[in-house]
Amino acid sequence: MCQLLGMNCNVPTDICFSFEGFRARGGKTDEHADGWGIGFFEEQGSRIFLDDKPSFESPVADLVRNYPIRSLNAIAHIRKATHGNVCLKNTHPFQRELWGSYWIFAHNGKLGDFNPTFQGIFQPVGDTDSEKALCYTLEKLQQRFGNTRPILSKLYAALLDISNEIATHGIYNFLFSDGCIFFARCSTSLHYIIREAPFAQAHLIDEDVTVDFKEVTTPNDRVAIVATEPLTDNEQWTEIKPGELILFKDGQPLYS
Amino acid sequence: MCQLLGMNCNVPTDICFSFEGFRARGGKTDEHADGWGIGFFEEQGSRIFLDDKPSFESPVADLVRNYPIRSLNAIAHIRKATHGNVCLKNTHPFQRELWGSYWIFAHNGKLGDFNPTFQGIFQPVGDTDSEKALCYTLEKLQQRFGNTRPILSKLYAALLDISNEIATHGIYNFLFSDGCIFFARCSTSLHYIIREAPFAQAHLIDEDVTVDFKEVTTPNDRVAIVATEPLTDNEQWTEIKPGELILFKDGQPLYS
Repeated sequence: MCQLLGMNCNVPTDICFSFEGFRARGGKTDEHADGWGIGFFEEQGSRIFLDDKPSFESPVADLVRNYPIRSLNAIAHIRKATHGNVCLKNTHPFQRELWGSYWIFAHNGKLGDFNPTFQGIFQPVGDTDSEKALCYTLEKLQQRFGNTRPILSKLYAALLDISNEIATHGIYNFLFSDGCIFFARCSTSLHYIIREAPFAQAHLIDEDVTVDFKEVTTPNDRVAIVATEPLTDNEQWTEIKPGELILFKDGQPLYS
Repeated sequence: MCQLLGMNCNVPTDICFSFEGFRARGGKTDEHADGWGIGFFEEQGSRIFLDDKPSFESPVADLVRNYPIRSLNAIAHIRKATHGNVCLKNTHPFQRELWGSYWIFAHNGKLGDFNPTFQGIFQPVGDTDSEKALCYTLEKLQQRFGNTRPILSKLYAALLDISNEIATHGIYNFLFSDGCIFFARCSTSLHYIIREAPFAQAHLIDEDVTVDFKEVTTPNDRVAIVATEPLTDNEQWTEIKPGELILFKDGQPLYS
């Protein structure tokens, strides 16, 4: 299976520290070497860096590590292929536009026998069960709410329904964001941590790197990091429960 | 206004040489310093690198120059802002999915009073006239052909109609590709060159760089390069006529 990393903040923040530990799992400290990707939102705009090389040795990953992109929402994925070949069209995260916003999605898990018939507005380009799940989700949201974005509570309730339906097909951990709000859904394994004042030091599990967040933050900053497995060994991560869908906004859970 | 660069080939080719000259126009040899972007297709997959820094000094552009991505179709754009602020959501190229394919689009020009009402399936995220033109085009194609891709001749005829309609609003040079076919439409300035055997040397206008294509090609390779202004000073570029829409495939014009 794959691994997920996501970030939701109240001020634009770079994900360099977490990404450094995460990328090591793409071929160095773990086996997720079948490509990787990361999507950043900068206001409503987005940019996604993808590579079908292992993240540990990818020149694109070097760029992401060395060029701090400050973002309120970011989603990264390292892949161990289960459905679909190793190629760009099967590399997460995937992006579509709905309601005049970009939506970025990455999935960890495996959905057996998930072969919905699409109405056609959103159609998968690649072969993964994950991209099917994104297209199915967006189609269902569009069918339910038409061409106008609903209020948050209704969107949350709809996404919970759709996710539970898809999850009947298998393992369905995902991260999903439009650059303003950030959803994390756990099926088997997903953890998060909220970093806020008083900030402390954090030390990566996968690389011998420590950062002192006191030195790079202001007292009002708040950052939620979500990952398949905890990335640091000296902080307390919260396990998301199987079946739970959390909506993060401004670096904290809003609905769960 | 902006500048466009595109490539359509019969074998996956890197765009490094052309891009080196082109990026210099983003702040060094010309004034297009309000961000830039490039989209590559690798089979049906795509990746787009965007930056709101001038291309001449962008770390993302350094990556693109140093990491040869081999692609059948690529579209690049350097921006001098006319409509919309300098930010990521207004940075070309833009991408949407239609008929299970990604479509990448970049525009050079200015469309005055172009404010169509969108049905909602494709809605702009940013503020540019260009992204409106893309959404309008895709909506019209979807309305005309439903959820199934038409044959090439019908697609060409439809795109010609839609482009001529949009062009009544102003200057409308664009590049548009789904990774298989490549459209170039000229309103005021667009040039192309076909490189094929016998290959020769080419020398950039904007940088003192020469490449000998004999050394990096095989006899069956064929590459079409399309650009707002010619990029080399020792080759014969063909001017595309105002109002002309050319469909390139496998490195040569198929319809015009």
